[in-house]
Order: sequence, then C-alpha cells, then structure tokens
Amino acid sequence: MRVRKRKGAEEHLANNPYYVILSPEDAKGKWHQVFGNDKPIHIEVGSGKGGFITGMAAQNPDINYIGIDLQISVLSHALDKVLASDLDNVRLLQVDGSSLTNYFADQEIDLLYLNFSDPWPKTKHEKRRLTYKTFLDIYKKILPEHGEIHFKTDNRGLFEYSLASFSQYGMVLQKVWLDLHASDFADNVMTEYEQKFSDKGQVIYRVEARF
Amino acid sequence: MRVRKRKGAEEHLANNPYYVILSPEDAKGKWHQVFGNDKPIHIEVGSGKGGFITGMAAQNPDINYIGIDLQISVLSHALDKVLASDLDNVRLLQVDGSSLTNYFADQEIDLLYLNFSDPWPKTKHEKRRLTYKTFLDIYKKILPEHGEIHFKTDNRGLFEYSLASFSQYGMVLQKVWLDLHASDFADNVMTEYEQKFSDKGQVIYRVEARF
Repeated sequence: MRVRKRKGAEEHLANNPYYVILSPEDAKGKWHQVFGNDKPIHIEVGSGKGGFITGMAAQNPDINYIGIDLQISVLSHALDKVLASDLDNVRLLQVDGSSLTNYFADQEIDLLYLNFSDPWPKTKHEKRRLTYKTFLDIYKKILPEHGEIHFKTDNRGLFEYSLASFSQYGMVLQKVWLDLHASDFADNVMTEYEQKFSDKGQVIYRVEARF
Repeated sequence: MRVRKRKGAEEHLANNPYYVILSPEDAKGKWHQVFGNDKPIHIEVGSGKGGFITGMAAQNPDINYIGIDLQISVLSHALDKVLASDLDNVRLLQVDGSSLTNYFADQEIDLLYLNFSDPWPKTKHEKRRLTYKTFLDIYKKILPEHGEIHFKTDNRGLFEYSLASFSQYGMVLQKVWLDLHASDFADNVMTEYEQKFSDKGQVIYRVEARF
C-alpha cells in the first residue's frame, strides 16, 4: 500500500512502546510473555492501516494479533486505530516480511494472514511477491506443522500466481473463494482497501492454504 | 449438458463405427492400433456437442483425440461435426466417466480435458462432480505419472471446489486462469457452451493440474 508520508509518524510510534514493539529481536521466542498470556498468536504481514488487525482483535479477544508493516506512515495510522479501540490483544511491528525469522522463533506463530499484498505484476519482480517461495520458506518456519496462511486480494494476477505458488510449494488449498463477498463466508473483517475496491464492484478472492 | 432428445441419434452413432467405437472394452490397451499410429492420445470427458474436441483435432493433427459422453443425442451432434470436418484423429465413445478404466489401460492416455462439466451444486451430489476424488482415482490410473488434467468452466462454485479437490488429492496446480478470455492464453478452442456464456460476459476459469 502506498500512502503519503505522515509528519511525526516515527515519533508517534516511538511514543507508544506498549503497542509498537521497538526491539522485536528481543521478543523472539517470548511473544507470549509480551502479551502476558498463552493465547494463540496470529500475524498479518503487510497490515497497512490496521483495519483488519484491529477488527479481528475486537472480534476475537482470545487471540493475540501482530500487525507487521515496513512503512512508518502506514503503521502510524494502524497505531491510531489500536489506541482508539483500546484493545489489549494487538501489537505492531515495523519490520520487513523477509526478516520474520529474526523476530519469531520456530512455530511461534499460529496463523498468518496476507491481505491485498502488493501484486508486483512484472515478472522480474516475482521475488518480491509475498507469496513467492522464499517467503513461504519463512512463513513455514514460524508456523506450526500444517500451519495455515489465509490470503485475500482483489488482484487477479496475484491470486492466480499465488494459488500456483502455494500448490507448487507443496501446500494444500483447503478452501478457495472466487467472490468472497458473494459467498456465505461469515464474519469477514474488511481491510480499508477491500472496502474501497468492493464498493467499486471489484471481486475479492480468498484462499486458506496449509503447509 | 442437457439437450433435447434427437430422433435417430442411436442409429446415427451405430452407422458410423469408424468414428464411434461401439465396443470400447475391446480397444482397451489397443488405442494406438485404433488410430493406426503412435501419436499421443488426449481425451475429453464430457465432450458434449464436440466443438472442443473437433477444434483441437483440427488444430493439432499430431495428437489423437477421444471425446467421451454418455448422452446419445449430444454425441450424435459431435459425430456430425467429426463427419463434416473430415478429421482422422478423432474418435467418440458413448460411455460414462466413472467406467473409464474399462476402456483404457493404465497410462494409455496422455492428457485429460474436462470442460464445463455439470456443476452438481448441491453438497449431496458432490460425488457426481467430475473433479471429485473418486474420479481423480480413475484419471490417475489411465494417465502417465505426473499426468495432467486441463479443466475449464464458467461455474464459480465448481471451480472453487475443483481447485481444492485437486490440491487435497495431492495434485499440483501448474497454472490458474481466473478470466481466461482476458488473458494471453493462445489458441484457446472454445466449446459451444463457452462461446454462449462468454458472449454474455461470463468469466471463464481454467486450470492445468498435474498428478
């Protein structure tokens, strides 16, 4: 997601160390301590403005959520939502998806979400797509055996690519939605992006895949 | 595909034993003899009115095609197309998809097509869908190791189901198209059904999956 630079975003994050984990490498293997409980931990890689992660956290108080985004401005908007919602089961990380194993121990994460990831449509940028095999290597390490990725997007090319990429990696597609909003999928929490594109009549794709 | 009963259809098929193989159990293991050459053999299960199979046969003279449909009236229309096109690399079988191993030896078929198969949308009819696991058992037997199924449909529910069914069977999705006609897929041969639904603006889905 591309957003305008937000003035004071970096300071805003630094001033809220309870929600924004500033030295995440220190938390590796200790995330249940960070949350102060043993509830499952779900992460969203590329959490953008935080609509999904805060919506999920409100809907599921017995799950801990970590939103991960590299972009400071975007993450500061997510922080606003977390602060406004007064949720205790969300944390935010300003790190890159390719470095997750620096911050999470093997099998420390119970479920991983990818929502409306950058499609990187050019073939030469394939390696940057968050469903490319080197990313799957990383997700596999931090998830349990047969751990799941839940992925949604409005981008047809990225979804076509990702179904094949998951499958060729040896993952199993548990369930596929080719028009999520026309389906009976309950309790869908929309991202900001999803709301916008759905309003334009764009189809939303979704898949649950497991290692 | 549902079509009106056609008067004289049965006789029409019986009168053309060169194209319509009347005792296919006798051909089991001998299909290369039937065609009189060693070219690869591709089959379409549910070949309907034969637009696809005859189009493919015209486009690919170095491949032998067998169209399979249980419905006599439908098959008689396919026979019309075969006769009109004067193709020597097509044969037709009036048999059921669930009985293929009676007519084909292990690994005798090189590629299998499913086009616009009946969606059988009710859950209680899942076992009738041509991408249900018991059908995959059959296809696997008559195809080579890592043999491929190429499947297209306009039916969203059936396509969602089939992607998951292939994957859960252990098949690998090689490539997925979520809007075939908007893609750069070359040499697409349309079925009668595909032409009709595409004209109405319906999206056509396609997948190439391998065992």
